[in-house]
Amino acid sequence: MPHLPETEKLLLEFSNGWLTIWFNTPENRNALSSELSEELVKTLTMVRDDRSVRGITIRGKGGIFCAGGDLKSFGSALSGEFSHENAAKLNRGGGEMFHLVNTMPQVVIALVDGAAIAGGLGMLCCADIVAVTKDAKFSLTETQLGIAPAQIAPYVVQRTGLTTARRLMLTGARFTGVEAERYGLADFIADTSGQLDLIEADIKKNVMLCAPGANAATKELVLAATHLGTEEMMDFAAKRFAECMLSDEGREGIMSFVQKTKPSWAATDEESDQ
Amino acid sequence: MPHLPETEKLLLEFSNGWLTIWFNTPENRNALSSELSEELVKTLTMVRDDRSVRGITIRGKGGIFCAGGDLKSFGSALSGEFSHENAAKLNRGGGEMFHLVNTMPQVVIALVDGAAIAGGLGMLCCADIVAVTKDAKFSLTETQLGIAPAQIAPYVVQRTGLTTARRLMLTGARFTGVEAERYGLADFIADTSGQLDLIEADIKKNVMLCAPGANAATKELVLAATHLGTEEMMDFAAKRFAECMLSDEGREGIMSFVQKTKPSWAATDEESDQ
Amino acid sequence: MPHLPETEKLLLEFSNGWLTIWFNTPENRNALSSELSEELVKTLTMVRDDRSVRGITIRGKGGIFCAGGDLKSFGSALSGEFSHENAAKLNRGGGEMFHLVNTMPQVVIALVDGAAIAGGLGMLCCADIVAVTKDAKFSLTETQLGIAPAQIAPYVVQRTGLTTARRLMLTGARFTGVEAERYGLADFIADTSGQLDLIEADIKKNVMLCAPGANAATKELVLAATHLGTEEMMDFAAKRFAECMLSDEGREGIMSFVQKTKPSWAATDEESDQ
Repeated sequence: MPHLPETEKLLLEFSNGWLTIWFNTPENRNALSSELSEELVKTLTMVRDDRSVRGITIRGKGGIFCAGGDLKSFGSALSGEFSHENAAKLNRGGGEMFHLVNTMPQVVIALVDGAAIAGGLGMLCCADIVAVTKDAKFSLTETQLGIAPAQIAPYVVQRTGLTTARRLMLTGARFTGVEAERYGLADFIADTSGQLDLIEADIKKNVMLCAPGANAATKELVLAATHLGTEEMMDFAAKRFAECMLSDEGREGIMSFVQKTKPSWAATDEESDQ
Repeated sequence: MPHLPETEKLLLEFSNGWLTIWFNTPENRNALSSELSEELVKTLTMVRDDRSVRGITIRGKGGIFCAGGDLKSFGSALSGEFSHENAAKLNRGGGEMFHLVNTMPQVVIALVDGAAIAGGLGMLCCADIVAVTKDAKFSLTETQLGIAPAQIAPYVVQRTGLTTARRLMLTGARFTGVEAERYGLADFIADTSGQLDLIEADIKKNVMLCAPGANAATKELVLAATHLGTEEMMDFAAKRFAECMLSDEGREGIMSFVQKTKPSWAATDEESDQ
Repeated sequence: MPHLPETEKLLLEFSNGWLTIWFNTPENRNALSSELSEELVKTLTMVRDDRSVRGITIRGKGGIFCAGGDLKSFGSALSGEFSHENAAKLNRGGGEMFHLVNTMPQVVIALVDGAAIAGGLGMLCCADIVAVTKDAKFSLTETQLGIAPAQIAPYVVQRTGLTTARRLMLTGARFTGVEAERYGLADFIADTSGQLDLIEADIKKNVMLCAPGANAATKELVLAATHLGTEEMMDFAAKRFAECMLSDEGREGIMSFVQKTKPSWAATDEESDQ
């Protein structure tokens, strides 16, 4: 059982190596309030170096994923004293949160039911794997409010490519889960909310066959591949590969393959419960 | 009404905050001649800082979008004195034009009817949103002529991704609007030329709900996201976000949201005509 | 006829300007053993500056494309003395091979029948054009073995985009040719192995219309476009364009266009045989 913080805005569940983080403020449509964001950062920071946590699912209570930034608090801020420095600092904090989600060493799944709007859409772009219900609603509404999808821009671009990102950002187009899959925002599409759980179960089953240390190294490598130059990437890849191969995991995995046995991390739930 | 240059090779129309630029030399299949290119650069340079121009549509008269570079002038050039420096300078000028289209602060739509070949295909890749007729014809014919799709390479890669770009460039494959949509070159596909106007009207309607300053900041941000490093991007995004939020637009947009009113920039055509 | 090395693990065929490289060790599922890898590097290095080689096809004998790294040799290595330096050096050699395939000046086609697993999947991502049979099997199995898809990461990312790459790498998901096309791994899908030859014939026909020098310059340009900054890319593109235009090929290609004749490189097989 990993160390987890006390949380009020998030509901945390841990079972069979998997942490589920529920956004749990349906009263404000699971908006990314300061309190919820702080709890999310705290939770992820506590588990990121814990290889007994094999994966993380992010989802929302109350039939909605996340409505984005907390606009009412923006309104209050603008009514009082609110400097450029305050606004920039607050916004950069959001950027650090998205970066943390994007670079978690564990596999991160986003399950999207109801709606993912503005920063909520940005959040799902930071996950490794995204499943949405076909009726879920999406849009990047920022510029309709006179502001910009600023900190989420890199994550929308990395998930959908520049072409779709610029179109969605500059038009605030509304679309559903069906288009989300077509645009590359979603990897899997579910007819119903209940089907999201079946899709998640399938993904988990695959992830549990993968060595946790190897997956952490791979996540770092695949993200590095997006910005390192050729020579630098070859050196970095060689270093990480050698570390994996000579680790206990690598030795066990390769020997298991040669000897046609099952490595310890690929034990089924039943076996690992014993 | 924005300041616009006198043009011969382009037909310019302005209505309800939208500038339409027609390539208007069907006698040479709207090729990117020096004259047409200079007029395009002059027009875009004159309107780029004018936030009363909310969007720009680029399209072609005579049932063709654009046939690419002006090959007859290449032929004439090669018959006379034509140095490496001349050729490089001419070509770099083309690159600056494509870069200007790609980085316009306004939303740029390309409507493609008939054909978009070589540099004409490169041109549409610089737009934010592309709609094509299903029968429109496309190909990157450069290497069949012994030359290279040089200045357009970054824009083809940014729109379709490297995989499709290298295939189309190295084979000169011919394809239609149906494949263009599948390859990610087009966002929307029309059965007929007339349907392009309906698609455009829908896009415009969405763009007119977006604040012009916020859209300009967003365009800059989304392009920056393709090449800035993580820390640099977070700083840049925070700065731009703070500027937007504390601008008149941002204050109006957020207060309109909180008070459930409509911001001034989202007035309908009818309202704005009054 | 180009100079070609003596090979044991590869079968080399040359005909009508096209080199076919067959992986020819079906007894170990065409694994990327040291011997096979060395022969591949040697072959490609010998032909890369030979413009009479217009294209290269990579495929596998025995009904399989390539099963990836030679895991049995990994097992033997781990049983003996095997340092971090040994492992890193071996792995970096693989990276240099993938980089060589990716940057060949000629068009590279991968025809995938049977299976392309781990490094075999990475190999196809280095090709310009990929055709697969609908029943071909794919997966990135590395992390299930406690190791990482390290040197292939950049090539998987460049072909499918980051979104699909991270999902496939972190789950080891198994999929077929049908999904491979949907994920952007494959450009063309064949019902049968025999149909792969028809797809290849079509691609070759197109490539033979393209000037070999122009195609080599274009390949360099399109790869450069993925990492050069705007100004640097415009300079580089202008230089390469000028070189192409003023070369014998460029002069011939443009004059052929103006005079409506056929350039020498576009001669049909029959003509070139005469």
